[in-house]
Amino acid sequence: MTGAECLLRTLLKNGVNICFMNPGTSEMQFVAALDRVSGMRPVLGLFEGVCSGAADGYARMTRKPAATLLHLGPGLGNALANFHNARKARSPVVNIVGDHATAHQKFDAPLSADVPAFARTISDSVRVVGSSAEMGALATQTVEAAMGPPGQIATLIVPADFSWSEAGEEGDWAWPLKRARASDRDIEEAALLLRKLGPEAGVLMGGQTMVDAGLTAAERITKGSGARLFYDRNTSRAALGGGRFEPQRVAYFPEKAEAQFHGLQHVVLIEAKAPVSFFAYPGRKSTLLPDDCAVTVLAGVDGDGLYALEVLADHFPAPEPSGGPRDRTHSIYGREVLTTESLGRAIAFHLPEDAIVSDEMVSSSEAVVPLLGCGRRLDFLPVTGGSIGQGLPLALGAAVACPDRKVVALEADGSGMYTLQALWTMARENLNVTVVIFSNRRYRILDVEMRRTGAGDLGPLANDMLEVGRPDLNWVKLAEGAGVEATRATTPREFVDQFTSALQASGPRLVEAVL
Amino acid sequence: MTGAECLLRTLLKNGVNICFMNPGTSEMQFVAALDRVSGMRPVLGLFEGVCSGAADGYARMTRKPAATLLHLGPGLGNALANFHNARKARSPVVNIVGDHATAHQKFDAPLSADVPAFARTISDSVRVVGSSAEMGALATQTVEAAMGPPGQIATLIVPADFSWSEAGEEGDWAWPLKRARASDRDIEEAALLLRKLGPEAGVLMGGQTMVDAGLTAAERITKGSGARLFYDRNTSRAALGGGRFEPQRVAYFPEKAEAQFHGLQHVVLIEAKAPVSFFAYPGRKSTLLPDDCAVTVLAGVDGDGLYALEVLADHFPAPEPSGGPRDRTHSIYGREVLTTESLGRAIAFHLPEDAIVSDEMVSSSEAVVPLLGCGRRLDFLPVTGGSIGQGLPLALGAAVACPDRKVVALEADGSGMYTLQALWTMARENLNVTVVIFSNRRYRILDVEMRRTGAGDLGPLANDMLEVGRPDLNWVKLAEGAGVEATRATTPREFVDQFTSALQASGPRLVEAVL
Repeated sequence: MTGAECLLRTLLKNGVNICFMNPGTSEMQFVAALDRVSGMRPVLGLFEGVCSGAADGYARMTRKPAATLLHLGPGLGNALANFHNARKARSPVVNIVGDHATAHQKFDAPLSADVPAFARTISDSVRVVGSSAEMGALATQTVEAAMGPPGQIATLIVPADFSWSEAGEEGDWAWPLKRARASDRDIEEAALLLRKLGPEAGVLMGGQTMVDAGLTAAERITKGSGARLFYDRNTSRAALGGGRFEPQRVAYFPEKAEAQFHGLQHVVLIEAKAPVSFFAYPGRKSTLLPDDCAVTVLAGVDGDGLYALEVLADHFPAPEPSGGPRDRTHSIYGREVLTTESLGRAIAFHLPEDAIVSDEMVSSSEAVVPLLGCGRRLDFLPVTGGSIGQGLPLALGAAVACPDRKVVALEADGSGMYTLQALWTMARENLNVTVVIFSNRRYRILDVEMRRTGAGDLGPLANDMLEVGRPDLNWVKLAEGAGVEATRATTPREFVDQFTSALQASGPRLVEAVL
Repeated sequence: MTGAECLLRTLLKNGVNICFMNPGTSEMQFVAALDRVSGMRPVLGLFEGVCSGAADGYARMTRKPAATLLHLGPGLGNALANFHNARKARSPVVNIVGDHATAHQKFDAPLSADVPAFARTISDSVRVVGSSAEMGALATQTVEAAMGPPGQIATLIVPADFSWSEAGEEGDWAWPLKRARASDRDIEEAALLLRKLGPEAGVLMGGQTMVDAGLTAAERITKGSGARLFYDRNTSRAALGGGRFEPQRVAYFPEKAEAQFHGLQHVVLIEAKAPVSFFAYPGRKSTLLPDDCAVTVLAGVDGDGLYALEVLADHFPAPEPSGGPRDRTHSIYGREVLTTESLGRAIAFHLPEDAIVSDEMVSSSEAVVPLLGCGRRLDFLPVTGGSIGQGLPLALGAAVACPDRKVVALEADGSGMYTLQALWTMARENLNVTVVIFSNRRYRILDVEMRRTGAGDLGPLANDMLEVGRPDLNWVKLAEGAGVEATRATTPREFVDQFTSALQASGPRLVEAVL
């Protein structure tokens, strides 16, 4: 058994059976082994950021790691931005990176680079295979590290010679740690606190808690105590819609978030950290809670937040059933003008039950996301680390994870350009993804940020740097060029027709909504 | 004067007047200052790898640094692959990266990352601004560092608050070091050596020596001594064609390179390092020179290789004039089938005088590059660091540097996909770039590498990972989607018509040549 086969067998033994890859020469042994060791599904990306983003999307939906296979330092470099997001999502990923054969490393060949240094920028742990004999053990350790808790980017660097030479046994089962649970006493104290402070207390949920059971518990807590319930805007996945209870999402801009938190004396954190502003601005502080607000961590980011929420909820009476799903969306079919808001309404109205929504609308997000919660059941996947270029790869990975669900990528035109190569993989794998491009020909969010940083008026040169136009991108052609059928909508009627038709199709479709 | 204005003024004072950028919130002060401090030309890329590759292309043609402006760790992450190539090209680049305001950095906001760690992967020096008062001095030091010798990736990390707060004076002039020159005695010894050994001696040129004066000297040396002249295949820029003397380019695969070097007893290095194999393969050594071959460094990578070559050449008689430019190319107009070879011939035949050729043909390169040397004068820009995704951005940067010359990007379909966003910037800046896509729907080089690494036969899964098809990319649509006019050629006649028409156009054009 070669090192590559040993690695592959160890991954498969531990349930890692999807590999998003963009391999090169150093990874050829691993690629060749795919046909000799059965069970691994390889998914090719034509750019490495597609692979890291897809692994993130896969992990957010399955709560288990996919593998990525990347080519030396620069190949890993291309994947870093989406690994950054994956790390902030606490997504487990087994990141395999080839390196030059050990004897070759001292020669500073063209592709030589400090692969561990690239890896450390976004990895929670980095292992370098030092002999083919230890391949199996290190692969097991890497899977174990990836599984956390919380989920981690665990990188395994594999010099080419250890892939092609004879290895020992395959590695063992990985035994990840269990998530820590809050004590009964701590939960009881939190219950007393919430009951005492009522609306002057808050609970901030994050991590893996925004699921059915967590929302049921959250509703019981707020109804029983009067405390205000919030969720981290950068949580990896949030169940919304279908009439389920919806905690307030922490706003992007600090004034709005401060208004949400106004009057709080104490906040209980559940798999969330004390909220801070996304960026700093002149004359504003970074923290968002009131200065005198106390904080209690009931479940850390590696803790079992769902357990904490459910036991906490048991301290309060079960609320009356809320009377079935509400659906407060409505069609925009007869309207005249396509705006961010009408587009959001159309999407919320027409999304099928149990859709998965990848959100990278950036400046459009604050207007659209609240509408999504008014519609049918869905899982919402935001940009967790603020690095754009996540939306399309994340949708790809989610669609690989959940082939029976419809994935909808809500994507800005500026952010979509970073990793548009994902469209090709969606076509190749015939994935159930509908992409909507919010085409405003602008890095619109920077218009706002420019004012906020006090940089002054926008002169012509500065204006030009914020414009994603001149020439306008044609997303229909970009998509078709990558093998994805696409249409362009300029009116609400066109959009609704195209969007509903795209949702009914099998395989990927793209609708460019021109705003 | 704000810190951002101070930075801008210091760059301009030192002749850094082009900035390839993809800014975000932390860089808004710099962007706003573009309209208050005149002289900087900002060029927007819709992906950061476009910016780093463009800065490399600009530096290779001008021998001076452009600036890049990037957004925090992940934005820099996207630029690393092409910085890797720029570093191996020894291109000077002033890389400016924004970071969170200092007071904000401790809060682990979503975009927080270890920016210096990202920077160190590809930078020769990293400076972090510690106060707005030191902005000018650090900017000067960064320019100085970038200029080397040899050229370096010099990174300046700028926390946002030091951009928006009041700064001191602008920085001084940068005073880069001079390149070291070989002593008369060392050159004389080298001359004696070459004369004595004749064809058993070699001279390997690299760095900045592959220019008119270097080639004239090289011809005199080989004709006068009988020594064999070579050039580094990863040299940043090589003047070819127009009947000029052409040293042998070191081959990609080690057997061929070893055959080129067979019988050498001594090699003189001029801004080059002892050649090594690109990758290691089972049972092959990494070095390429004969084991007993001695090596003399007459100019290191930071040395003045042109001086060494010219003084060395003076030890030999001036050769007879070679009788005007040779042109050994010929039209392929009447041929039936478009192949890599016929495509190469057509390109070599029709390239205009003094074209700049960006080569990222990958598997097609070995067949095409020798043909280029048979045609008119051109400057050839290869992939220096082996990281693909360089070709289009490099062409972009070269076109910004040399607006009066025609730039031709010879690009494989697989490698073109990594940074196709460069097409949009070519359209926006109306750059004189003709892109030819060698469309073989395959990571063809990996077919070869797969065999070489001994990985065995290609099973169906492995085969799939090497195929850039299913669906086929449509480069005409991809280009048009990014605002670049494009056509597809499937026969020699179509290709010649489209290529010559594209060359005559002002602004960018793309021709997809289907192989």
